[in-house]
Amino acid sequence: MKNLPKIVLIGAGNVATHLSQALYENGIQVLQIFSRNLQKATELALQINAQPTNDLSKITDKGTIYIIAVHDDAIREVAEQLAYLKGEKRLFVHTSGATPSTVFKGVFKNYGVFYPLQTFSIDRKANFQNIPICTHTKKKNRIKILEELAQRISPKTYKINDQQRATLHVAAVFVNNFSNHLFHIGEQICEDGNVDFDILRPLIQETTAKVQSNRPIEMQTGPAKRGDVKTIQRHLDYLKDQSHFKDIYELLTANISKTYQ
Amino acid sequence: MKNLPKIVLIGAGNVATHLSQALYENGIQVLQIFSRNLQKATELALQINAQPTNDLSKITDKGTIYIIAVHDDAIREVAEQLAYLKGEKRLFVHTSGATPSTVFKGVFKNYGVFYPLQTFSIDRKANFQNIPICTHTKKKNRIKILEELAQRISPKTYKINDQQRATLHVAAVFVNNFSNHLFHIGEQICEDGNVDFDILRPLIQETTAKVQSNRPIEMQTGPAKRGDVKTIQRHLDYLKDQSHFKDIYELLTANISKTYQ
Repeated sequence: MKNLPKIVLIGAGNVATHLSQALYENGIQVLQIFSRNLQKATELALQINAQPTNDLSKITDKGTIYIIAVHDDAIREVAEQLAYLKGEKRLFVHTSGATPSTVFKGVFKNYGVFYPLQTFSIDRKANFQNIPICTHTKKKNRIKILEELAQRISPKTYKINDQQRATLHVAAVFVNNFSNHLFHIGEQICEDGNVDFDILRPLIQETTAKVQSNRPIEMQTGPAKRGDVKTIQRHLDYLKDQSHFKDIYELLTANISKTYQ
Repeated sequence: MKNLPKIVLIGAGNVATHLSQALYENGIQVLQIFSRNLQKATELALQINAQPTNDLSKITDKGTIYIIAVHDDAIREVAEQLAYLKGEKRLFVHTSGATPSTVFKGVFKNYGVFYPLQTFSIDRKANFQNIPICTHTKKKNRIKILEELAQRISPKTYKINDQQRATLHVAAVFVNNFSNHLFHIGEQICEDGNVDFDILRPLIQETTAKVQSNRPIEMQTGPAKRGDVKTIQRHLDYLKDQSHFKDIYELLTANISKTYQ
């Protein structure tokens, strides 16, 4: 990467915030940051030496890569407002896991996706050393510049087309959103039973540590896996007054049984 | 703990193996190890300087604490065969999360539970620094010796009665068995969609890292949490030919919606 790309960042939310820090820390210049909220744009811009703006009609034309990190529903609208910047050289990407790159069709000539696959919290520093970045460009000859940008901030980069990203997004709901909800249910059961949830935290840690280097299917344990009907029945009795938890217990137990029978 | 307790270990399975190592490494003497399989007993005994046996009628009467680490279904039977050792001084405990201490009722005078709450794999070294040990004794004046033993091998010890342990066991199924199954489903979806599951491993790691110091309910993200009906519908369409995954998606989504509405 002899000529470092110059970045323009559209958005000042969760992803934009973490991404701007990572770019800055890795020596990539962010020229300008846009947010409808000028104060937010200014706060972020100050941290990384960029120019803030809240006017989409005044975005600089000096950028190499324009990263649109806004809510899924706003991507198309923002793109249309930036159409005046389209041209052979500039590359426009969004950061969404749920949105196909074709959202930009008919607006820009060069477009793609720059999707950091992680669960970001505003008050928790993101460690890009452990954040895979999925890249895609419409034109094959533009993937290199995007890949190089990704590699500059993360050692884990993947070329992922729209269909594969749709797959990842569904799978991510299972491994992240749904498993976190199971952790919540676990905490709720502990609370109801007057037990400190802290006792389960190391178990949660180990459960996921195991699948970092093993296939989950090889790590499965528990009553459903071993067909321990007595224990399953005891658990269902325990949950008899918590019908929502009982429904989830029954469905997942049935699915595990089917998987390992 | 001026007078270290002397341990007799009944069982040579997963829990017994990891526990015997931890006891040995922390300077606790294991006098004898029983397994129906003499070779297994011998292998384990050799590692920790204990005597092996496969004869339940020849267990030493010199033990302070007898740890019965056998399958849940076998605990009562084993206890009955050890009834000849009952006496004021000796304490008999099992290591099961699913079995009330009263399984020993009528057999021993002093009994309790010594339950290390973790998911053990035979080929993965257990780190007892991060394994909570839940202790319980029928007689209150015997809890101290068991607590001291627990503290000797783990910094995380909890006095947990039978009812609380039943609670923990149900909750553990949700946070461990069920979440691991969701990881498996995530891998399956990736495989079907021709995507490397490795891309999701950092997400799994971060999901659980977050709940080590936060409440899961505060860490929830995703389409179900924010009521993003469009994304949910797109995911359900994606899963239309995988009815088992779709059922789980729908039930968990409905339960998350209800929780955060």
